[in-house]
Amino acid sequence: MPPTMVEHNGLDMCLNKYCHSSSSSSSSEQDKKIFSKLKLSLSGDYPRKNAEILSGQYGTNLLLIGLALMLAISHHGPSVKEEHLLSFVTCLMILQLIWMMWYILVRERQKNTRTEKDVHATTCWIRGGLTLLALLSLIMDAFRIGYFVGYQSCVSAVLGVYPVIHATHTIAQVHFLWFHIKDVIKSFETFERFGVIHAVFTNLLLWCNGVMSEAEHFLNNHKRRLTALGYGNLTIVHSEPHCNCTTSTCSMFSSSLFYLYPFNVEYHIFVSAMLFVMWKNIGRTIDLSSNRKRLATKTQGLTVGPILGLLALASTIGILVVYVTHVEESLKMRQSAISMFYIYGIVMLVFMCSAGASGLIIYRADHVPLDTSKNPSRQLDTELLFGSSIGSWLMSWCSVVAVLGADSSPPYRWTNLIYSLLIVLEKYIQNLFVVESLYRKQEDGEREDPELPASPEIFSVTSSLAPPYNGIINRTFVTPDRTCSTMENEQEESGQVKGAHKHKEANPEKHCCLLIMCNISLWILPAFGCRPQYDNGLEQETFGFSIWTTVLNFAIPLNLFYRMHSVASLFEVFRRV
Amino acid sequence: MPPTMVEHNGLDMCLNKYCHSSSSSSSSEQDKKIFSKLKLSLSGDYPRKNAEILSGQYGTNLLLIGLALMLAISHHGPSVKEEHLLSFVTCLMILQLIWMMWYILVRERQKNTRTEKDVHATTCWIRGGLTLLALLSLIMDAFRIGYFVGYQSCVSAVLGVYPVIHATHTIAQVHFLWFHIKDVIKSFETFERFGVIHAVFTNLLLWCNGVMSEAEHFLNNHKRRLTALGYGNLTIVHSEPHCNCTTSTCSMFSSSLFYLYPFNVEYHIFVSAMLFVMWKNIGRTIDLSSNRKRLATKTQGLTVGPILGLLALASTIGILVVYVTHVEESLKMRQSAISMFYIYGIVMLVFMCSAGASGLIIYRADHVPLDTSKNPSRQLDTELLFGSSIGSWLMSWCSVVAVLGADSSPPYRWTNLIYSLLIVLEKYIQNLFVVESLYRKQEDGEREDPELPASPEIFSVTSSLAPPYNGIINRTFVTPDRTCSTMENEQEESGQVKGAHKHKEANPEKHCCLLIMCNISLWILPAFGCRPQYDNGLEQETFGFSIWTTVLNFAIPLNLFYRMHSVASLFEVFRRV
Repeated sequence: MPPTMVEHNGLDMCLNKYCHSSSSSSSSEQDKKIFSKLKLSLSGDYPRKNAEILSGQYGTNLLLIGLALMLAISHHGPSVKEEHLLSFVTCLMILQLIWMMWYILVRERQKNTRTEKDVHATTCWIRGGLTLLALLSLIMDAFRIGYFVGYQSCVSAVLGVYPVIHATHTIAQVHFLWFHIKDVIKSFETFERFGVIHAVFTNLLLWCNGVMSEAEHFLNNHKRRLTALGYGNLTIVHSEPHCNCTTSTCSMFSSSLFYLYPFNVEYHIFVSAMLFVMWKNIGRTIDLSSNRKRLATKTQGLTVGPILGLLALASTIGILVVYVTHVEESLKMRQSAISMFYIYGIVMLVFMCSAGASGLIIYRADHVPLDTSKNPSRQLDTELLFGSSIGSWLMSWCSVVAVLGADSSPPYRWTNLIYSLLIVLEKYIQNLFVVESLYRKQEDGEREDPELPASPEIFSVTSSLAPPYNGIINRTFVTPDRTCSTMENEQEESGQVKGAHKHKEANPEKHCCLLIMCNISLWILPAFGCRPQYDNGLEQETFGFSIWTTVLNFAIPLNLFYRMHSVASLFEVFRRV
Repeated sequence: MPPTMVEHNGLDMCLNKYCHSSSSSSSSEQDKKIFSKLKLSLSGDYPRKNAEILSGQYGTNLLLIGLALMLAISHHGPSVKEEHLLSFVTCLMILQLIWMMWYILVRERQKNTRTEKDVHATTCWIRGGLTLLALLSLIMDAFRIGYFVGYQSCVSAVLGVYPVIHATHTIAQVHFLWFHIKDVIKSFETFERFGVIHAVFTNLLLWCNGVMSEAEHFLNNHKRRLTALGYGNLTIVHSEPHCNCTTSTCSMFSSSLFYLYPFNVEYHIFVSAMLFVMWKNIGRTIDLSSNRKRLATKTQGLTVGPILGLLALASTIGILVVYVTHVEESLKMRQSAISMFYIYGIVMLVFMCSAGASGLIIYRADHVPLDTSKNPSRQLDTELLFGSSIGSWLMSWCSVVAVLGADSSPPYRWTNLIYSLLIVLEKYIQNLFVVESLYRKQEDGEREDPELPASPEIFSVTSSLAPPYNGIINRTFVTPDRTCSTMENEQEESGQVKGAHKHKEANPEKHCCLLIMCNISLWILPAFGCRPQYDNGLEQETFGFSIWTTVLNFAIPLNLFYRMHSVASLFEVFRRV
């Protein structure tokens, strides 16, 4: 191909420039020029849009290969085994480790040059939370290694290598998160793009893998229950090794694993979202004026919200224990457990809806212009919130269809309907509330509303202290830790300004606090086994076993992610108001 | 809720403004003020970001309700029937009709005020194509009515109402497409947003419904074949009515329907994409300087590309006929038909890959800065291209896993592997090529490359004729038809300029032409029944019947859309270069 192309190009240039003077004699010279130009542009300034698509497509295909392997495994056929998937994932993790090492070394060598940072990319409390989740993942790896040691004689070596690599990967990645996730990469852009997107999709694949293992575990539990209740004999596929455990702790390890899965799963999806923001930031020119962190004021006057929230959290744990123990028993106990869950859910959701709605009404009454500056992190937050709602909305609408169409009428039929409709409404309102909160311009003591001029003395205190001070701190490109601690100090120092801010503070933060606790509650329940969608039988009657479990396998992981993500977003809002 | 909220707000204002002077006496007056303010901001300037999310969530939920109904129907249970879905869809279409009528009436009354238009939103050839597809949809509706008349005595009346409403909807919507799709709405923004998104999701739901019917038809065909070949007895669910047809044409109608489905399906998805662009444009401030249409020059020197393309198209039809007839016969004939398909596919894909790759190399050698101006239509094109690739990539990777893991070894095993890998590669390259083509700045006779200054006389001809002339045309807000015909005239008039443009023209357009024809070919094959993924048995062995048909039901519609959409995008590129 190149020869014909060059010919054409030569012709073009001829038309463009040389035709009037020397048309055919200088063609070989020109060829050389074109070749050198081609070489230059192939190596050098590859257009950014292209690099994005090139690397994005690479990452997507990695994930799809993994998904294809998972689908083959879930068929439990003779040809594709879990080892194949694990070796693929291990290779990806090793590649990511090499890239991270390379990246850190390069940054070390360029220590004297400034690295731009995107302060919106993440906050230290998110990183703290992720470190905690990473620690739990490490425990999980330890359990996996213990399990492998017990069955060493009859399982593939991959099952031993995988947790070791995963542990190394986790430690290295947490280090990366603390010191490099905010970097705005400006050198080797195309190469780094591949590195970052590789990391994004490796984590996404690890998430998918975790979700699949969890779903299979629940499905087997569900089948076991159905069989015990005499609903027909469903085959449960066991993946137990074919030899005896040489240590006495194997069964302990394998059963504990499933309590750690939820944390591991959240860890990977959060890391991939953060890495995705890093990927979006590559080559970006940060607008320094909008890149200053806002003063986070300490919270005060928190009474109703947190108390209600803590109450919700405490009752959730009670409900979880009662549900998990009762659902295994007789049909009647089972039905009462499910009814209890729905009634509890309705109460929670009514509170959440009214908290969100009143937050929105306050925003309507208190007009603040929205901040439209570019911010990939916020953009992604919005999209993820919206995208992950889809799973649970689908599940709810399926329940509505099932309730309306069902022939049988268990006691929880209509509470299920109300619960499902409330779930739709609650996500609808909460998304609106969170997005508007994230997009509202934070007042730097100024009020844009002409009807309400702030009193001059308060205005001057806030404006003289806050914005320039903040601006300076962030323009000096401090390391993340220092920003973190400085922010804390600032909060102490600015105690005197609190009174001035209070007129906006008091209202939405109460709602935030309640919503955070409620979202945590609604994460805990499905994460630790309280999934009435499996147990109530109504949807299964309308949709059939296979369609309904497929819907659940798609929707429940999305819903879990939605809850965690909205906790993170609400906490962000809470800190800012 | 409002009372407590108002209390808080009153407190805030007190803190803010009145605390120093009169704290408690003027509270009732203030309450009134706040109420009026609340009312004003609830009715008036609702923030744009919120209106987007509010309406987006509404639309998504419409689609999800429809999906839930479809899932229930696909279970063939006793409670949810197709009538329920059709009445739901009919209601949505009636709502959309009312909104469109309202919209058109409002625009009629505002005739004397200018309506801004986004010229990038669509082109007249796309609208022409859609009109053609709409005509075929109307024929389909006629067949449906005929079918209903025959079975009138024993089927639900909904089956008769639906095609009538669908036909009305189609006609009204085509009218809307021609005269209003480019409008940039600036009045009643929040309400119009709901109207437009309702239209988007109604069309999307009609698309889903079409896809589901088609998939079921193919699945039944597939099961019939498997049973005929003795692969076990799979139950085929017939949805035939329980009475005899009173006219003699019923079976003709129902069998012809399936040849019209592909067109109907493409019609709805394209319309929903265009309406989505309209939704994105609501309230947008169009930058007039970037909003001028570029001069479309006539194509010349088209030799190799179109000839190869037409050859591909002709051979495709041959392959289709041979495949469809052979695959129903003995095992040997069937295997040879599948092998033939793969070999044919490999040849096509190699051509397409090299066309795309050489196009990309030409772009590398001929550096043009990318156009980064805001353009929702192009943004959506890119995302849809990328998003719809995912389906076919997943299918390909599944095939790769299946080929590598399979125990049986039919003659087409390794050709299937090569074919699948080439599909991945071809989409990878084609996406890059299309996206880069769409984002390249179109030269208005100017060349940004400092190494190649354009010769002055050519520069002056182009720049004096083209850009201002075009700019004026579009700033006068002509009706689409006039723009259309004017553009055609322009093309004639600017015949003299062709020579000057030729240096960019000659190269990529040849590739475009070949790629367009090849994409049409690869759309025709699966759209009209050539789906070796169902017939080859390899994937089914590895993934099992239910997982694999689920993957296909997800991936094939996306792939069909991908092909049509890339034809549209490539045609756009072809017209511009």
